[in-house]
Amino acid sequence: MSPSKHLPDSHQVEDPSLARIGAFSDAVFAFAITLLILAIRIPHPTDADASQGLLDLLLQQWQSLLAFALSFMVIGINWANHRVMFANFARANNGLVWLNLLYLMVGVAFMPIPTAVLGEWLGSPKNQVVATLFYGIASTIGGLVFNVVWWYGAYATKLTHPDLTARERHAHTVAWAPAPVLVAMLTLVALANVWISVGGYAVIVLLYVLPLPRLVSRAKRARGR
Amino acid sequence: MSPSKHLPDSHQVEDPSLARIGAFSDAVFAFAITLLILAIRIPHPTDADASQGLLDLLLQQWQSLLAFALSFMVIGINWANHRVMFANFARANNGLVWLNLLYLMVGVAFMPIPTAVLGEWLGSPKNQVVATLFYGIASTIGGLVFNVVWWYGAYATKLTHPDLTARERHAHTVAWAPAPVLVAMLTLVALANVWISVGGYAVIVLLYVLPLPRLVSRAKRARGR
Amino acid sequence: MSPSKHLPDSHQVEDPSLARIGAFSDAVFAFAITLLILAIRIPHPTDADASQGLLDLLLQQWQSLLAFALSFMVIGINWANHRVMFANFARANNGLVWLNLLYLMVGVAFMPIPTAVLGEWLGSPKNQVVATLFYGIASTIGGLVFNVVWWYGAYATKLTHPDLTARERHAHTVAWAPAPVLVAMLTLVALANVWISVGGYAVIVLLYVLPLPRLVSRAKRARGR
Amino acid sequence: MSPSKHLPDSHQVEDPSLARIGAFSDAVFAFAITLLILAIRIPHPTDADASQGLLDLLLQQWQSLLAFALSFMVIGINWANHRVMFANFARANNGLVWLNLLYLMVGVAFMPIPTAVLGEWLGSPKNQVVATLFYGIASTIGGLVFNVVWWYGAYATKLTHPDLTARERHAHTVAWAPAPVLVAMLTLVALANVWISVGGYAVIVLLYVLPLPRLVSRAKRARGR
Repeated sequence: MSPSKHLPDSHQVEDPSLARIGAFSDAVFAFAITLLILAIRIPHPTDADASQGLLDLLLQQWQSLLAFALSFMVIGINWANHRVMFANFARANNGLVWLNLLYLMVGVAFMPIPTAVLGEWLGSPKNQVVATLFYGIASTIGGLVFNVVWWYGAYATKLTHPDLTARERHAHTVAWAPAPVLVAMLTLVALANVWISVGGYAVIVLLYVLPLPRLVSRAKRARGR
Repeated sequence: MSPSKHLPDSHQVEDPSLARIGAFSDAVFAFAITLLILAIRIPHPTDADASQGLLDLLLQQWQSLLAFALSFMVIGINWANHRVMFANFARANNGLVWLNLLYLMVGVAFMPIPTAVLGEWLGSPKNQVVATLFYGIASTIGGLVFNVVWWYGAYATKLTHPDLTARERHAHTVAWAPAPVLVAMLTLVALANVWISVGGYAVIVLLYVLPLPRLVSRAKRARGR
Repeated sequence: MSPSKHLPDSHQVEDPSLARIGAFSDAVFAFAITLLILAIRIPHPTDADASQGLLDLLLQQWQSLLAFALSFMVIGINWANHRVMFANFARANNGLVWLNLLYLMVGVAFMPIPTAVLGEWLGSPKNQVVATLFYGIASTIGGLVFNVVWWYGAYATKLTHPDLTARERHAHTVAWAPAPVLVAMLTLVALANVWISVGGYAVIVLLYVLPLPRLVSRAKRARGR
Repeated sequence: MSPSKHLPDSHQVEDPSLARIGAFSDAVFAFAITLLILAIRIPHPTDADASQGLLDLLLQQWQSLLAFALSFMVIGINWANHRVMFANFARANNGLVWLNLLYLMVGVAFMPIPTAVLGEWLGSPKNQVVATLFYGIASTIGGLVFNVVWWYGAYATKLTHPDLTARERHAHTVAWAPAPVLVAMLTLVALANVWISVGGYAVIVLLYVLPLPRLVSRAKRARGR
């Protein structure tokens, strides 16, 4: 077997409809990630508060910038994980189409809304808990549905590539399952302190950005045997 | 004949311009489905009704969330059906380009507008009938043009793959033709009761999500002979 | 030579960077065509004029719907022509990258603005001439730059496929050159009567939708010799 | 070796995941460049200043049109450079995924915001310096991260194609490194005079549009040996 056969993404050429689902998903990811800028207000010279000066109006939006950056990385991580997940699939079925669509709806396309709400209401003493809970619940549901898509494709209907060992399959499950649990716990933390909750999301982002190479290299090592 | 020859989507590689129409359509589907979030209002702390609190402002939008979810699945179904339709075509002509463009206009790109209108005006006693009629008429026209594209490509100008049997062609026609009729009937129901009408759309969505595997397996069985 | 060698779009596989420019252009086309819905106002129940009722608010927007439909077909035609133009190119150079980018800016990405302005101000006695002139000037510039891209690629730097005969090249030039001239004339007509001007755009759309098959078949006949 | 082997973009077919990162980036570029029109206000007949007439309202926006055109070309240049950069990569790793995502966030998806701010506040004596600094700082950071991505892929983790000579690698570094330095200097110029600063951006755009052919031909010459 040639080494190129082992590149995960090359699997997708085996089923053109799988490639088309992946391309559609990528477009929704790319569009939703770009639409996150809707969270940032563009101050107009005719606005009621324009007399404060542009500098003040921009600086007041640091929470929105924070929410934009956080969600950009979250959707980016989801895109990268989605890419890895679909690279493990060798074919598609209708259940995958619909579950993936459900994931794109709740976990990707909807995210600009809680992102904008979080950015606008962080700092409002009465409402910042609701904003953080809204963001956390949306993220938790998105993470859950991501895992459902993986469970459906990898275990329930066995869409994965024949090359994929039980060990690799398990490694992905172990890597992806904790995320919604952690996010749900952080969501509850918001009831006590929103800043610990939001800071926790940032930590999860870093955790996911860093361990992925290890996961992939572990999987490659397993395949290389 | 190799089995991969029977994968529907692989037909599209035979005509590059067909592939490019499909890719353009997919992009419009992906953008329109993501733009549906325009139906959901982002409450601002400076809004006139901000004193009600964020929780109230979010909860008041359950109709918009419902309309977003409904239209997301409707456009998703249309995307999946469009994918199946184009997988049956072996080549493109200019008529297909223009009819498909007309479909993308009325059946896909326009949908964020009636979706937002439905979500905003459901619950307004005087106007919810108009909102539901607007949504229903737009959906009916979209469904009709979808069928016109199929009729044009499959019957009028015979763009379908030579492998496609008359029986399979007929199976698709039978699967797609009832949708605009059902939607038109539900649109009329809105004159009596908008909630039965909207609930009916949700039922049609479920009907379309579920029987597709059967249609495809039936077609595969027919081809497998 | 196999007949598939003569399919215009298959040329693009010869130069991957040409394919990538085409894919980028397609994405801008698909996004701009979907963003045209920004021309249509979504009436809110809290708007100052909401007491008129939703039906009135929707019916008042028939000019915006007209402008949306007109621009959707105009961008669709430009996409189809752009597709044909790039199918005639065998390779790309930097001049093509920048001129094409200029075209995407003035002729595609900008169009949602004059479309929205036309839809909003048609019917305003004092301002509809300005709105129609704005739309016409933008369309004329877009059409001019489209022809500059073709002239640059087909004549100045000879990026076209070696198979392309001088006759075919000329046929495309003859087909595309009149559009900006006609649009410029219609723009001037707006000074006398905006409705004749807007109606004229609709006629040009139909003219371009219909003769394209003839142009292509003529080109195919020429190639078939 | 066939000459097509030397086409830079053809490298990407060697690693499908690299191709998918490139396609995702292209989509973000295409959406962000189209979303720049958010910088241009659509005047409504019901606006408070509508009595000034549409012509006045459009003419007052010349700064926004300038900012739109400037940013469109800036993002276009970044897209073209990004295309060249990724054509030099033969494979991807996770560091490239995350650094590229960071670049797409700060250097591409965010740009519609400073573009809109620049267009709206140029001409406001008290605030135009802040607007130009905001635009300049965002552009500088974007340019810096672009160089970090190149440095990471070309030097730190050696993702570049084996064919790429040290000389070619150096030529790219020399071509891309000065941009953020120049932009940072122009940002400081804004403290003295915003118009020299904005005019300087336009000059940099032209500098980048023009010398690229020379860089590429130099690289081709080097490879042709």
